[in-house]
Amino acid sequence: MDHFADRLFAACRKTGSVAVVGLDPRLEMIPPAFKDDDDPAGALLRFNLAILDGVAGLVPAVKPNIAFYEAFGAAGLRAYLDTCRAAHERGLLVIGDIKRGDIGSTAAAYAAAHLGGEDCPHDAITVNAFAGSDGVMPFVDKAAETGRGLFVWVRGSNPSSAELQDLPVAGGGTVAEKLADRVSAWGGAHGGESGMSLVGAVVGATQAEMLAAYRAMLPRAWLLLPGYGSQGATGADVVGGFTDDGAGALVAASRSVCFAFRSGDGGDDAGPAQVADAARQSVTAMNDDINTALAAAGKSLPG
Amino acid sequence: MDHFADRLFAACRKTGSVAVVGLDPRLEMIPPAFKDDDDPAGALLRFNLAILDGVAGLVPAVKPNIAFYEAFGAAGLRAYLDTCRAAHERGLLVIGDIKRGDIGSTAAAYAAAHLGGEDCPHDAITVNAFAGSDGVMPFVDKAAETGRGLFVWVRGSNPSSAELQDLPVAGGGTVAEKLADRVSAWGGAHGGESGMSLVGAVVGATQAEMLAAYRAMLPRAWLLLPGYGSQGATGADVVGGFTDDGAGALVAASRSVCFAFRSGDGGDDAGPAQVADAARQSVTAMNDDINTALAAAGKSLPG
Repeated sequence: MDHFADRLFAACRKTGSVAVVGLDPRLEMIPPAFKDDDDPAGALLRFNLAILDGVAGLVPAVKPNIAFYEAFGAAGLRAYLDTCRAAHERGLLVIGDIKRGDIGSTAAAYAAAHLGGEDCPHDAITVNAFAGSDGVMPFVDKAAETGRGLFVWVRGSNPSSAELQDLPVAGGGTVAEKLADRVSAWGGAHGGESGMSLVGAVVGATQAEMLAAYRAMLPRAWLLLPGYGSQGATGADVVGGFTDDGAGALVAASRSVCFAFRSGDGGDDAGPAQVADAARQSVTAMNDDINTALAAAGKSLPG
Repeated sequence: MDHFADRLFAACRKTGSVAVVGLDPRLEMIPPAFKDDDDPAGALLRFNLAILDGVAGLVPAVKPNIAFYEAFGAAGLRAYLDTCRAAHERGLLVIGDIKRGDIGSTAAAYAAAHLGGEDCPHDAITVNAFAGSDGVMPFVDKAAETGRGLFVWVRGSNPSSAELQDLPVAGGGTVAEKLADRVSAWGGAHGGESGMSLVGAVVGATQAEMLAAYRAMLPRAWLLLPGYGSQGATGADVVGGFTDDGAGALVAASRSVCFAFRSGDGGDDAGPAQVADAARQSVTAMNDDINTALAAAGKSLPG
């Protein structure tokens, strides 16, 4: 398989989009038409299929967060894996937002589970690097072997992320900035044809002033920027995270796309067509917002 | 249900043990007698049942690491959940070593999955606190509601844990020590009758000189100490992690117990009885080692 960074760049060019749709279904937000009392986890998959039908071709990737599936046990995991497969069938890359991380031998087991095998559900995953290098390198090595990628969680989009991540380190910099230095080192040997690495970073898009700084610290890393939409970030906020060719960053939104059918006239009577249409409209508006901001900054994607 | 810290203390007193058996099965280490080509994940469960039969009554808890099950997809998760259920049936507490952590709304989904519900597989879980308070409090709140507990990963047992966790913070202390301060705050409102909190901490037992310091920083937190046995720690190394009543800490070992059948005459011809006997002998020796060291330090568990 081609290098993950090259596949990602190609998918962005093909769709003219750097948006990623988070698939974080909440059962209480899913309309009755998708539900079956005998198969509660099946509602997650059926709802996701409507979203996927709405956004396929318009975005390079989707990002299911496995937390929302684990509550349903083995049936939930099956819904997660079937969602990933359905995304692949529709030509979408899959970034598994799983935030896994542990010491070396355990990290190797997670890497085999989530970046390995013929039936691998992911093109990339998010990784928690608290364990340091020996907990991250098993993911890097497995991704290099299988043509996949990872995004190390460097700086969150949540209010309390500052507690640990922004602690000032003696001698200069913050914990998150030291982690960014590590990301550069971990990814250094793994560049694709585009020059970008298979090791990216998650940096909260609600920190607009920080993005340009992280972009400069991590010139060869794809940045995954959560926080667009419901969490408050706009296209103008995220421009600093991009490289000059309009790539190098992905902007993720979940609630604002998946539950778009609930704004305006939509609601509990919505079926697959309404959910898909609302997601399509939301993601189209998101693409326009981001692409307009990128064009204004002279950073348009090459066609 | 009683408070988790009280249940844990009672289980230690009843078994006369502070040892925890890690259930981290590796298919390549499991003998053929447990395997079935049509059901590879079933081997994990069958192997674990032998370990559980060997150690039930001798230790307060087991600690399955979910990473080793995720590689088998939905069938692996079922083997994990069945392992947890079988441990409960044998009177063992279950500490799910899952190292989950994310921003608030996602952490709430993980907490519901792993600390909630009638069929909850866990008495406690390990948590990654990189997100800060709003990513940890959903776990604390859910545990308080359901009589369960958590262990926040503060300092690892792996060589590279120092990279991030031992970074010196401007003004004094390390990242891990700042995290320990947070653990005290997160657990402060949640003490049981014993005075100990439902919020504990994971601190690597290979760092003998550090344990007394973390014990002093976290007087009301149960410490979960990985690293005994295969990772090099001995009973004498872990004494500093205990409170004066011989409690307040759990010493975890995995490979040295579960694969004990491979030392001496054992090997690929081992069946359930051999695996169980070797685990029982290994855990008995571990209990003797730790209890002798605790007695020498004047820290024996009350009978």
